Amino acid sequence: MVSSLRLPALTSLFSPSFTRRSTVSLRRRLHLRPPLAAGFSAQSAASSPTETEDRVDSKKSGRVEDRGSTDRVITPRSQDFNAWYLDVIANAELADYGPVRGTMVIRPYGYAMWEAIQDYLNVKFKETGHSNMYFPQFIPYSFIEKEASHVEGFSPELALVTIGGGKELEEKLVVRPTSETIVNHMFTQWIHSYRDLPLMINQWANVTRWEMRTKPFVRTLEFLWQEGHTAHATLEEAEKEALQMIDVYTKFAYEQAAIPVIAGRKSKVETFAGADKTYTIEAMMGDRKALQAGTSHNLGQNFSRAFGTQFTDENGLRQHVWQTSWAISTRFVGGIIMTHGDDTGLMLPPRIAPIQVVIVPIWKKVDEKTGVLDAASSVAETLKNAGLKVKLDDTDQRTPGWKFNFWEMKGVPLRIEIGPRDVSSASVVISRRDIPGKQGKVFGISMEPSILEAYVKDRLDEIQSSLLQRAISFRDRCSSDRSNGSCLLHGCILVSIALGSFNFLESFSEFFELNRIHMLLCTLDFFALISNASWTLCSNIVDVSSYEELKEAISLGKWARGPWSASDADELRIKEETGATIRCFPFEQPQGTKACLMTGKPADEVAIFAKSY
Amino acid sequence: MVSSLRLPALTSLFSPSFTRRSTVSLRRRLHLRPPLAAGFSAQSAASSPTETEDRVDSKKSGRVEDRGSTDRVITPRSQDFNAWYLDVIANAELADYGPVRGTMVIRPYGYAMWEAIQDYLNVKFKETGHSNMYFPQFIPYSFIEKEASHVEGFSPELALVTIGGGKELEEKLVVRPTSETIVNHMFTQWIHSYRDLPLMINQWANVTRWEMRTKPFVRTLEFLWQEGHTAHATLEEAEKEALQMIDVYTKFAYEQAAIPVIAGRKSKVETFAGADKTYTIEAMMGDRKALQAGTSHNLGQNFSRAFGTQFTDENGLRQHVWQTSWAISTRFVGGIIMTHGDDTGLMLPPRIAPIQVVIVPIWKKVDEKTGVLDAASSVAETLKNAGLKVKLDDTDQRTPGWKFNFWEMKGVPLRIEIGPRDVSSASVVISRRDIPGKQGKVFGISMEPSILEAYVKDRLDEIQSSLLQRAISFRDRCSSDRSNGSCLLHGCILVSIALGSFNFLESFSEFFELNRIHMLLCTLDFFALISNASWTLCSNIVDVSSYEELKEAISLGKWARGPWSASDADELRIKEETGATIRCFPFEQPQGTKACLMTGKPADEVAIFAKSY
Repeated sequence: MVSSLRLPALTSLFSPSFTRRSTVSLRRRLHLRPPLAAGFSAQSAASSPTETEDRVDSKKSGRVEDRGSTDRVITPRSQDFNAWYLDVIANAELADYGPVRGTMVIRPYGYAMWEAIQDYLNVKFKETGHSNMYFPQFIPYSFIEKEASHVEGFSPELALVTIGGGKELEEKLVVRPTSETIVNHMFTQWIHSYRDLPLMINQWANVTRWEMRTKPFVRTLEFLWQEGHTAHATLEEAEKEALQMIDVYTKFAYEQAAIPVIAGRKSKVETFAGADKTYTIEAMMGDRKALQAGTSHNLGQNFSRAFGTQFTDENGLRQHVWQTSWAISTRFVGGIIMTHGDDTGLMLPPRIAPIQVVIVPIWKKVDEKTGVLDAASSVAETLKNAGLKVKLDDTDQRTPGWKFNFWEMKGVPLRIEIGPRDVSSASVVISRRDIPGKQGKVFGISMEPSILEAYVKDRLDEIQSSLLQRAISFRDRCSSDRSNGSCLLHGCILVSIALGSFNFLESFSEFFELNRIHMLLCTLDFFALISNASWTLCSNIVDVSSYEELKEAISLGKWARGPWSASDADELRIKEETGATIRCFPFEQPQGTKACLMTGKPADEVAIFAKSY
Repeated sequence: MVSSLRLPALTSLFSPSFTRRSTVSLRRRLHLRPPLAAGFSAQSAASSPTETEDRVDSKKSGRVEDRGSTDRVITPRSQDFNAWYLDVIANAELADYGPVRGTMVIRPYGYAMWEAIQDYLNVKFKETGHSNMYFPQFIPYSFIEKEASHVEGFSPELALVTIGGGKELEEKLVVRPTSETIVNHMFTQWIHSYRDLPLMINQWANVTRWEMRTKPFVRTLEFLWQEGHTAHATLEEAEKEALQMIDVYTKFAYEQAAIPVIAGRKSKVETFAGADKTYTIEAMMGDRKALQAGTSHNLGQNFSRAFGTQFTDENGLRQHVWQTSWAISTRFVGGIIMTHGDDTGLMLPPRIAPIQVVIVPIWKKVDEKTGVLDAASSVAETLKNAGLKVKLDDTDQRTPGWKFNFWEMKGVPLRIEIGPRDVSSASVVISRRDIPGKQGKVFGISMEPSILEAYVKDRLDEIQSSLLQRAISFRDRCSSDRSNGSCLLHGCILVSIALGSFNFLESFSEFFELNRIHMLLCTLDFFALISNASWTLCSNIVDVSSYEELKEAISLGKWARGPWSASDADELRIKEETGATIRCFPFEQPQGTKACLMTGKPADEVAIFAKSY
């Protein structure tokens, strides 16, 4: 973790670059509707090439047709996170708004991210003993009313079908907001004895919740998800299952999505409507708001009692089953965008990226074209055969510079460039999306299939873990390239320490028999040491021991972590006064006795408070 | 095809076995609701072992607990096809009824068949250049009204959401019956120039049609499907795409589902609401009714004109796009059941089967158990590593005989039996689902992984092609094990020929210098030759040249194929008078000039008429 820490250029700490805000993105933000939501080549839109690329001269090549190359602008992330998010979704063609308020069309590039999520989880669900199946989405209204807290939680959000086949229906039908009720109705018919347990199923489906404030991927009227439902003979088994599934989600988040989620238990106030316990994974987005990225519920016997889902145990006694349910949705796609993206656009972890490697052939003269394209095709073939997701962008309607920008904005982890000189030397140039400019660019990688394949796979692995480390650093140590206003403080502290230690050493230079160069090196060493410690101080999760400290942390946009044993009323008061809620009681708890930040009374656990999506 | 023809035992032709119809299945048929729709081990149900299996003695083993072993009875297929179908769905745990009339819960075993369909098609769609995406299911009512014939076709079938979030909605929302309208609404925003074309997408989704007569898988209120939607610059491209996709479906049906569909064009009357042309694949079910198993529509410019979906062509002119849409649904699962199933239950083609090989360990004494189970686990591991879908049924709550019946009913293509004697000889016994009894059983197959793997894979390939050949024979040559009343005729013809030729040869035996044995052999050879020809005469598709012939064929439950150039009114008259509709004008057409079966006027094409689901 330390090795991956990249120190900021000091200048950047003092000159936050407030880029021009285009009228286009302003309009977009106000209307909440991207005017650029059009097919790529149809967009009268292209950011002007920013890469200083001496290999490419778009003006000279004569292949330029970048119509209106100034109006595809992504609002800088640091300037307006929400506008940036909507710009990225529109420009990277992830999603578009549907005709009905709050609905979303998931476009191929965004859907492919969802498919990557599905592919991984679907295997894990089966490995852990679950079978896929499908329940109808229409649920009799009376079902929803059976579980008291469930109806209270969901009734304001329901879409109701009242007319079918031209006739008014006798009973209104709920378009499923979640399936616990209909699942229990069916389980009651399938479960008879202990031999039928555990019953462990999952479905991939759409669900509808009549949300008032919507945001693509994060909260939409209809969304896609998987919902697991299980029934067990004992409370212990159900609890084990609920924990197992939150663990599957946690591993997915870390290993595939490169998102360092915090797993824990929800407070009573935040527990799912109908559950005894809700486990959650909470992720810190780029604006430091929390995203609840997946939940797993121990439903106890709430639904089985409401629906009479019983079994005969080994002693012949009738018992209610113990249940769980757990879900991850297309919201996770939003989480990936908001965790890794930067001012340039999307940045995708290789294991989620619909395209892992984009190949951009470069030629100027007509006689170069065939050789370059042949080499590019052959490289593409090599990497495809190695199981990688490869795109060869060989259109001649766009310049290489335009393509570089476009695929960077789309977050493709690696770019391979092949020009005439590369063809002669049988090598390629490879650029990393996560390291901008020349630092991320390596020349002269051999085209020899085994060498190229190994090199590309290694780099993709590096990017995968680098993105995770970066997100961890941002959350726990406020890493440089995510710094914003609040970290000016951090920059000042570091510079003071550096200058102070330099002055200190200079004063004693004779005593230590140091020359100035040596002294400078010593200072830098010391600086690195201190900075590492200071990043921790500057973490985006702040340990607090009083309500005042909590309020300060939240007002700075950070997460607060502190001992909690106060009442539900106190929790709601915090929400009202600060906008923050308890995200979870994390599974990883500090040792020792603690005093509740609110009441001073003993507290068993620390809770994490944050504003959230 | 000839080699796979299996001649019927003559006795079977004269003694159709009308098995006792259980009251359970009667009740089920009348209520259209299987009372047995319960978890397997919970079912108080097990067919009594019918296999004469000297290796297994369920009564002696002491491990029997087949509670109520008489009431899981599948109605014989020949007796009542519909009751048989519902029994199979209930007993094989493919689906269950949802709480809302006409809805269906797809249970894991049925859903796994749908997953096999998805896995194959999803790859093919991507190979042919389509991307997956997702459109919202709520469509403003006004959209449906935009395309005249579309609203006429779909408005009686709509489910409407009128209340959302507790409030009456200003505009009613249609729960998608199909997505052409919303797709065009979005295409209009994404398509601007010829460079944006072709636009080729697909979505896997649920759709809702308020059907009055429902039947699991075949016709339900809500069903799962994929719907492809494409937009092209020219009519020719759209036509090519529509044909390409019906071809993908055809290949899928033949190669994966082992269903010999007939691909062709729908008549004007049967064309999709909003399409210029509809292509279809039509399958003959076991009761000889037709099932429309997949369709591909050339939509022309109907929707693009209604929604203003235009592009600027290479000459700068605005043009409406040319479109297609195409779909296959969970109905196909019903098609697989009804094509291959028999009185014993399901019979699944290996490429669709959720379980390809079931392993049943057999032991009597306790000291045999460990050895047998170890060997069974090792065999299971070998086959799983070979990429096969394997189930090791090692529960000791059921007897081997019970398991044999259960997995046969579930249609598992191959069963491997391993007993103590097999363990000593390091071999296994393998039984084929498609060849009942001892004929389908082979002893002494080595457990050596490479030998076993090769043997099992070869048998699965054989079963796959055998099922297809059988379905072809049934349709085109009325194969034996599907025979019913109408084929008594066929049996009589064959017997007459056989006796006739035997008498003939006997009369001339001296002349030919034949002894009786030799003569019998000659007769049998001759019999095989003739029978092959006679099957063709006895095809379930009958060529007709007049309306009288058509009526006769339909009344015999067969399909009729005849030249057609008559009016829509004549077509509707046939539907009213016979219940049959034009299923398609098949792509494969006979040569030569033809006269319309109805009018006698010249006809370019033959059409296929049949009763259908």
